[in-house]
Amino acid sequence: MQFSPLIKELIDALKILPGVGTKSAQRMAFHLLERNRNGALRLSSVLHNAMEHIKHCEQCRTFCENALCEICANPKRQSSELLCVVESPQDVLAVEQTLEFKGRYFVLMGHLSPIDGIGPADIGLDQLEQILQAGGISEVILATNPTVEGAATAHYIAQMCKVHTIQASRIAHGVPVGGELEFIDGNTLTHAFSGRRVI
Amino acid sequence: MQFSPLIKELIDALKILPGVGTKSAQRMAFHLLERNRNGALRLSSVLHNAMEHIKHCEQCRTFCENALCEICANPKRQSSELLCVVESPQDVLAVEQTLEFKGRYFVLMGHLSPIDGIGPADIGLDQLEQILQAGGISEVILATNPTVEGAATAHYIAQMCKVHTIQASRIAHGVPVGGELEFIDGNTLTHAFSGRRVI
Ligand SMILES: [Zn+2]
Ligand SMILES: [Zn+2]
Repeated sequence: MQFSPLIKELIDALKILPGVGTKSAQRMAFHLLERNRNGALRLSSVLHNAMEHIKHCEQCRTFCENALCEICANPKRQSSELLCVVESPQDVLAVEQTLEFKGRYFVLMGHLSPIDGIGPADIGLDQLEQILQAGGISEVILATNPTVEGAATAHYIAQMCKVHTIQASRIAHGVPVGGELEFIDGNTLTHAFSGRRVI
Repeated sequence: MQFSPLIKELIDALKILPGVGTKSAQRMAFHLLERNRNGALRLSSVLHNAMEHIKHCEQCRTFCENALCEICANPKRQSSELLCVVESPQDVLAVEQTLEFKGRYFVLMGHLSPIDGIGPADIGLDQLEQILQAGGISEVILATNPTVEGAATAHYIAQMCKVHTIQASRIAHGVPVGGELEFIDGNTLTHAFSGRRVI
């Protein structure tokens, strides 16, 4: 004996969510059936809408349902000569939350990874090339992740900038503010030492 | 700046899932958008179907999309004089997986909990009363959870059985097979001692 066919289908469908195994999917399915059918119906309809309507911003490649995202549709932001390159829409949100950066973005939606067959065109570097060529950018701030792939991607884009004689910079890596030294990994600490400044 | 309205809606909708907070919901939303739009569309349609069509088995109260669940629709099972009472559909599955029990079920979909306002009618005990009255049951096996509420619920149903002169039994509590004694909680160990048998 197993659950009814439709319940089994529901549990299987929930398992496409990252981090959700059979046990969690069962728990979710019964929770929705017992306590929140309206919420589940709303989730069903929002999921459908989102998958049908969310595409990439034509200019910066982040996810949005319009041709241009909020930032790319803002003339103030678009008149900036600074372009910040990040790997994901979540990174845009993280940078925005600092309230420090008022320029434009370009969202790679990933990073170069030859081993996975992800080359320059897969992360929109042809589109970025056109933006650099179009002029109006004085500096590209490379805010890719502090990983091997992120660093390699930043390096590749820095070379592209050189061709267009546009300055490229990389955000500083170091000890997080408020972090305790003893819990920082060695690699970060190495970066923190080599990036030290006279005070 | 925040995510686009539709992305925000998607993240909020995913947060109705048990154990899913803002960060997980974001991760899920972007995972689906980037890597599995077809899976998400399938989840959307299954969710809708399930919420619209899954109801309670008319006889045992478990969740199913038909009038009767697989077990209640099976004449062999329904001719049994044993009725096992459990709290949830997942418990039916657990008992079925032992392949030991071949009788009927009654699924409370909860337990008595006066503090939460959950009384006998809320867990279908009026329906259970009718089943006991209808005859054909010689023993009710109380397999509610080994919790205070599960035990109280079992006790309540045992009293109902007494009225109909039907034998009521409670599944044994004790040390799980393969469990190591040192990791068993004291309450379980107490049950294991008081339930000891001569070998
Ligand atoms: Zn944009
Ligand atoms: Zn049934």
